Formats: sequence, structure tokens, C-alpha cells
Amino acid sequence: MKKVIAEFIGTFWLVLGGCGSAVLAAAYPELGIGFVGVSIAFGLTVVTMAYAIGHISGCHLNPAVSIGLWMGGRFDKKELLPYMAAQVLGGIAGAGILYIIASGKAGFEIGGFASNGYGEHSPGGYSLTAALVTETIMTFMFLIIILGATHSKAAKGFAGLAIGLGLTLIHLISIPVTNTSVNPARSISQALFAQGWAIEQLWLFIVAPVVGAILAGLVYKMISPEKE
Amino acid sequence: MKKVIAEFIGTFWLVLGGCGSAVLAAAYPELGIGFVGVSIAFGLTVVTMAYAIGHISGCHLNPAVSIGLWMGGRFDKKELLPYMAAQVLGGIAGAGILYIIASGKAGFEIGGFASNGYGEHSPGGYSLTAALVTETIMTFMFLIIILGATHSKAAKGFAGLAIGLGLTLIHLISIPVTNTSVNPARSISQALFAQGWAIEQLWLFIVAPVVGAILAGLVYKMISPEKE
Amino acid sequence: MKKVIAEFIGTFWLVLGGCGSAVLAAAYPELGIGFVGVSIAFGLTVVTMAYAIGHISGCHLNPAVSIGLWMGGRFDKKELLPYMAAQVLGGIAGAGILYIIASGKAGFEIGGFASNGYGEHSPGGYSLTAALVTETIMTFMFLIIILGATHSKAAKGFAGLAIGLGLTLIHLISIPVTNTSVNPARSISQALFAQGWAIEQLWLFIVAPVVGAILAGLVYKMISPEKE
Amino acid sequence: MKKVIAEFIGTFWLVLGGCGSAVLAAAYPELGIGFVGVSIAFGLTVVTMAYAIGHISGCHLNPAVSIGLWMGGRFDKKELLPYMAAQVLGGIAGAGILYIIASGKAGFEIGGFASNGYGEHSPGGYSLTAALVTETIMTFMFLIIILGATHSKAAKGFAGLAIGLGLTLIHLISIPVTNTSVNPARSISQALFAQGWAIEQLWLFIVAPVVGAILAGLVYKMISPEKE
Repeated sequence: MKKVIAEFIGTFWLVLGGCGSAVLAAAYPELGIGFVGVSIAFGLTVVTMAYAIGHISGCHLNPAVSIGLWMGGRFDKKELLPYMAAQVLGGIAGAGILYIIASGKAGFEIGGFASNGYGEHSPGGYSLTAALVTETIMTFMFLIIILGATHSKAAKGFAGLAIGLGLTLIHLISIPVTNTSVNPARSISQALFAQGWAIEQLWLFIVAPVVGAILAGLVYKMISPEKE
Repeated sequence: MKKVIAEFIGTFWLVLGGCGSAVLAAAYPELGIGFVGVSIAFGLTVVTMAYAIGHISGCHLNPAVSIGLWMGGRFDKKELLPYMAAQVLGGIAGAGILYIIASGKAGFEIGGFASNGYGEHSPGGYSLTAALVTETIMTFMFLIIILGATHSKAAKGFAGLAIGLGLTLIHLISIPVTNTSVNPARSISQALFAQGWAIEQLWLFIVAPVVGAILAGLVYKMISPEKE
Repeated sequence: MKKVIAEFIGTFWLVLGGCGSAVLAAAYPELGIGFVGVSIAFGLTVVTMAYAIGHISGCHLNPAVSIGLWMGGRFDKKELLPYMAAQVLGGIAGAGILYIIASGKAGFEIGGFASNGYGEHSPGGYSLTAALVTETIMTFMFLIIILGATHSKAAKGFAGLAIGLGLTLIHLISIPVTNTSVNPARSISQALFAQGWAIEQLWLFIVAPVVGAILAGLVYKMISPEKE
Repeated sequence: MKKVIAEFIGTFWLVLGGCGSAVLAAAYPELGIGFVGVSIAFGLTVVTMAYAIGHISGCHLNPAVSIGLWMGGRFDKKELLPYMAAQVLGGIAGAGILYIIASGKAGFEIGGFASNGYGEHSPGGYSLTAALVTETIMTFMFLIIILGATHSKAAKGFAGLAIGLGLTLIHLISIPVTNTSVNPARSISQALFAQGWAIEQLWLFIVAPVVGAILAGLVYKMISPEKE
């Protein structure tokens, strides 16, 4: 139960912090944080939670991560559903709080609410194929980083930094393509508030991250040192 | 006594460094550091002090942090008042030095002096409710990070990074809403120099962080591993 | 074999992440990540891989690094060729995926595709001499950082951060001069896709990094503590 | 002798990397790194060298740091002169290489060459008094960070990060005031190339950092835990 509460709080923070920085601060006139700031914010939600709750729940904060760790033999199948439920609910709670804050500004319109999209809803106008490739490979590499940095032979204590900064890196690359998901919980929470096209395109941001994570679990076994 | 001097110096640095970067460098023409730079600066005041004085005083630098640690059972009640006094005085000293430096530029006007505000004094025009929610939840999560990362089961040595970068993250999200406080000492010091509306709105930046910190102390006990 | 696969994946990530951030996100209107974001992205490809695969292959991701480590007595000559082959092939795979993503935007033209150049193909118009000096010295210092931070007397675990952030620093300095290589694999992969001048100028981005790396291997022996 | 060569190389890197990023990349059109990038670059020169040569020479890279460590009882008086000579010479070498690179661009004019200044040569037009206060207090806090983070009770291994990121923070605050020195070697090297007003104003960037460092050595003894 402690684990599930921790995952709820952590994913709440990932969505409030990451999507919050995008909605509230990215495009502020003159002084706004831009994609660099949003990328740092997403990564730091993971860095902070990794050290705060990593010793409680492992700090997945992402159904694709839980699935990838399960495929990689690092996570017990019977915990998969409660973890994923907590992540999705935590994400929705984060998006809800963000809605309360963002709507406290005169003239607020919800717009995309930092939802993920492709085609005409890709920030930079990238195609469905580009989005599929991007989300699959970015999640694949995210899981390679996670599986590698948490391996028993990796430098102790640094996994939280490597993984969180990995999420920063993924955003630096791919915000223009899909607004960057690699996390179905984060995509679901924003789509529920944005509605419309965000719901219609949501399937991609569930399928591609899960496929990427499963592939990473399989590939990592090929390169992993034997004793863990 | 060493602890109190350390808290004084640390909070001096938090205010001089964080608010100083905002007043002196954020809006510099063309090359200015913007909200990203200010967010990094606030976070790095905590990172640097965590490693420099953490082994002396614990490096709270913030009355809300001291209260939250006390609620979480990590800080002795009898040290609370001297710590908070040192933090407020250190913050005022930092603001004073910043005033001396900033006023050394021709045409200097004090303006808001990086004070925290809501409504028409919110940088982005966010309402009182948005400010209350933001400051309460941001401080709540700040204390969750602090209580978690300093737990005996957390990775050793990384707490300073996680906590400092957590403050960076909080600023990346919330500067547009309230100019980001989560720290009554930082709000008091700037309001004393800015006067006017900054004094009138100061109550929120004392109440909300303290409430958020107390809630975090209570919630953290629910998810904390038992042996510390 | 595991080592070679790890080097392939790692260099794939360095090119996809570093050059990808440059091609996809650097010049995005208003919110783009600029050279700061690209510099952080390149560095984080190394930080993430250092902790993910460092315990497998050592995480060179760069023929000049492998050569410099060999000169410094840290790497076995007989592994040099397979490592370099994996790095070049991994880089090409990364550039290929980047091509697929980038071309998914209407009106895509490949242009320089983040290739390295000098003279009229230097981003800031720097001469051949400036480019030669820059690439040689930047790679020299990169290897000094690598050889020093992985020395047995250096602080344990921090090498991945120091080396990756070193690559960030090198980009912060030198993108305007050559678009920053210090890595023949990264230069080859982009030139193969960009063709034309990028192929003609490729020699410099093979010769200068290798010369810099060899010099660093020799100089480091002068300052290295004796017991390793 | 190894120590002196290490200090030479390290200060060479601090000047080439820090001032180089300012001269070459800060004001690049549209994509330039601005003061945020320059601040990160200066800090990363110290982070990278701390892990690469910290176990050789202690990685001072700055006469004020050597003096402050001596005042704080951490550095042997008889090594002071050779360290300071190596730092100044290394800085000059770094500025020389930077000159060679920067002058490889058509239309190059040396201008201030990232020199430190006050009054009409302060980037933001800050007075002599503001500059004196800024440089003294910034160096004071830099030494507090260094003395604290390298104390035997501080978290092991993190000093290089805390100190380097401290230099980043100092630049985020004070580039508009003095272009940020806190390091006589860095000021001397640039002034020798820029000549004119940079030489005339050089005294401040020797006196203020040294005074700040001496004060820090004295104050730190008051708050330092007794056993080292």
C-alpha cells in the first residue's frame, strides 16, 4: 500500500511539474523557460522522486516503465496492475491541480493542455510515422537507461540522476515531434482534460511507449552482465 | 550557535543568490538568464549550502522546512525558534546586500524587488486561489522530497542534489504564478525592502508554505519505511 | 560481443540524441532549445549511457576516446577495431533514424544535418586553422577529463557525470566554430547523410580528434598519480 | 611538479572554457547561449577538473582559492607561490588559445575579450562600489562553499559538483555587475589581451577576491565542526 501511495504521489508530481512547467511557464513573454526549461522540469520530477520515494516503490511513475521492468525480469507481475492504476490516477490528480491553477488566470483557455499529438497536432507538424518511431525509440532508450543504471554492477546511487536526466534528454530531442510522452499516464491525464483530438490520438501514446519498453526488456537481456 | 550562524549564512545566500539573479540578471537585454536561470540559481543556493553546511545545521534555510521536519519527527522543537530567527535575519541581510549592489546602477528603481505576489502582483496575473493552491502544494512536495531524500534508506549523499534541484523544479513551474516563495524567510526579506503591496500580500507566503509543510510531515509518515 | 553491442547502442544514442536535438529542436520558433539545449543533450547522452552501459563496455562511444584510452594505457589494442566499427555503425544507425523522423515533417530539407564544418561551413564562419585548433584542443581536454575522472584515485561513481558534463561544456564553447565534433563517429554519420561539403571536410573531424586524443594520452602520463 | 602542471592545465581550461563560451557563443544570433550558457560553462570547467585532477592538485585553479584554503588551514604556505604562478600562466595560455580561435573569424575585433570591469565597463553599468561588494562577497561565499564541501564530515565525492555549480551560481548572479571574476588568474589573462581599461581596472579583480577569500577562511573557522 505504501508503494502504491508513493507511485500516486510521484506520478502526480511528474504531471504537475512537467506539464505544469509547459502550461504555466514555457511561453511566458520574454522570460519564459521554453523547451529547455520544460525538459529540465520533466527530468527533475524524476530525479527528485527517485531519491525521495525510490526506496519505497522503485519510483516508476510510468506504466511503460513498470511493463519494461517486468519484461526485463526486475518487477513482479502481480504488482503491475496496482502500480499502473496508481500512476494513471496520480497523473489525473496532477492534471486536475494544474487545471485549478492555470484557470486562475483571466482569459484562460485550455487548448491542448500539454497533450501529446501527431500530424496537425504535433508541435512541429511531424507525421504519424515520425511520431510512432520517435515514441517507440525514445521509450526503448529510456528503459535501456533504467535497466542499465539500476543494474547491480552500475555505480551505486547515481541511477536517479541518470534516469531523470535521461528524461530531460528525451524531451530536448522530441518535444517538437510529439510534445514527448514516453509515458501513457502523462498522456492520459492531459487528454482527459483537453478532450477532442487529444483523446483521438491517445492510442499512439499508449501503444508506442509500451512496445518500446517491451523491446528494451528483451534487448537488455542480450547485453546485461550475468550476475545481478 | 554554530548551527545558527550556518543557517544565517545559508539563508543569506539563498536570498542573495536566488533573488539576486532575478533582480540583476533575469531581464538583462538579449543575454539575460530568464526564468530558467533564476530557477537554476535558487536551486544551486541550496545545492551549494547543502554540501557546505549540511553537516553543521542540516541546511534548512527556510522556516517552512524547519516546521515540516519537526512535524515529520526529524527536528527538535526547541531548536525551531532560533533556526527560524536566523533564517529570517539571514534573508534580510541577503536582501540588504542585494539592495546595495542593485542600487549601484544609474536609474535603479526598487519595484517589486523579486517579492512574491498574487492577483495583480502575480507575474502572470494569477488569482489569490491559484496562488494559495500553488504555494501550498509546491511546499508540500518540497517537504516530501526533503523528508524522503534524507531518509536513512535513501541513497547516501544525494539529498543535497535532490533537494536543491527540487527547488529549481518548483521555480520552473511556479514563477509565473507567485514569483515562487515556498519560503517565508525569502518572502519577508524582499517585502521589507519593496514595501507596499508586498507587505500586504505577505501573509499568504507565510501561511501557505507552513500549511503545505505541516501536511507533508503528516502524509510522509504514511509512506515512510518504518526503520529510519 | 556484449561490449560491442553496448557501444553500438550507446553511439546510436549519442548521435540520435545530440544531433537529433540540433536538427529537431534547436531552432524551433520562440521556444527552441538553442545551443544551450544542444550542448546539454550531447552531454546527457554520455551521462545516461555511462551509468547504463559503463559497466559493460566502458562507454567510449567515440573512436577518439578509444584511441586516447589505448594511448593512456587503459584500453587493450585488440579491442580497438571492433569498438571503432561498432561506434561508426551505431552512429550511422542513429543518423538513419533521425533522418526518418526529421523527414516526417512537410517541407523537410536535409541541409547540413548537423554536420561538422569549417570555413564557409562553420556555423560562425571560423577558419580552417581555428577549426583545427579547436577540435584538437577540445578532444585533448575531453581525454584529460576521461583519463583523470576514471583514475582509481578519483571520486568513485562520478566519472559519468564529469565526462558527460565535459561534453556539454565542449559544445557550449565550440558549436559556433565547427558545430563541435571531438568524435569521428558522430561526424561520419552526419556527413554520410548530408553529403557534399560535409564529406569533403570530414578529414578534419577524423584527424584533429585523433591527434588531440593521442596527445592527451601522452600528457596524462606526466601528471597521473603512479598507482592506479 | 605534477601538482603544478595540473593547476596549469586546469586554469587553462577554466579560462578557455569559461571566457571562450562568452567570447565565441554567448551572443551568437538567435541560438546563442547567453549568460545562462556562460554560467554553466564556467561551472563545468571546475566540475570536470575537480574529478579529473582534484586527486592530483586539489584543483584550486584560482589564486584566491589557494589563499582562502591557506587561511582556512587547508593548504601549505610553501605551495602558495608555485600554485599561483601556474594558475596565472595557465590562464594566459587559455586566453592565448582563445585569441587564436576567435581571430579565425573574419572581422574579429578583440573588444573586452570577456574582461572584468566596473562603472562604464560593467556589462550592466554598475558602480565601483557595487563591483567591490559583489566580487568580495561572491568570493567569500565561493570559499565558504569550498571549505565546507571539502570538510571531512561533508558527503564524500560531491565537493566537485557543489563547488563547480557554486561557480555557475555566482555567474548567474553577477555577470551583469562585473562580468564575474572571483578569480584573479581569469581577470589577468583576459586583461593582458584586451589591454586599456581592462588593465586599469584589474586591481579590483585582484584585491576584492583576495579579501573575500581571506574573510571566508576566518569566518569558516567559527562554524567549522572541530574534527576534520
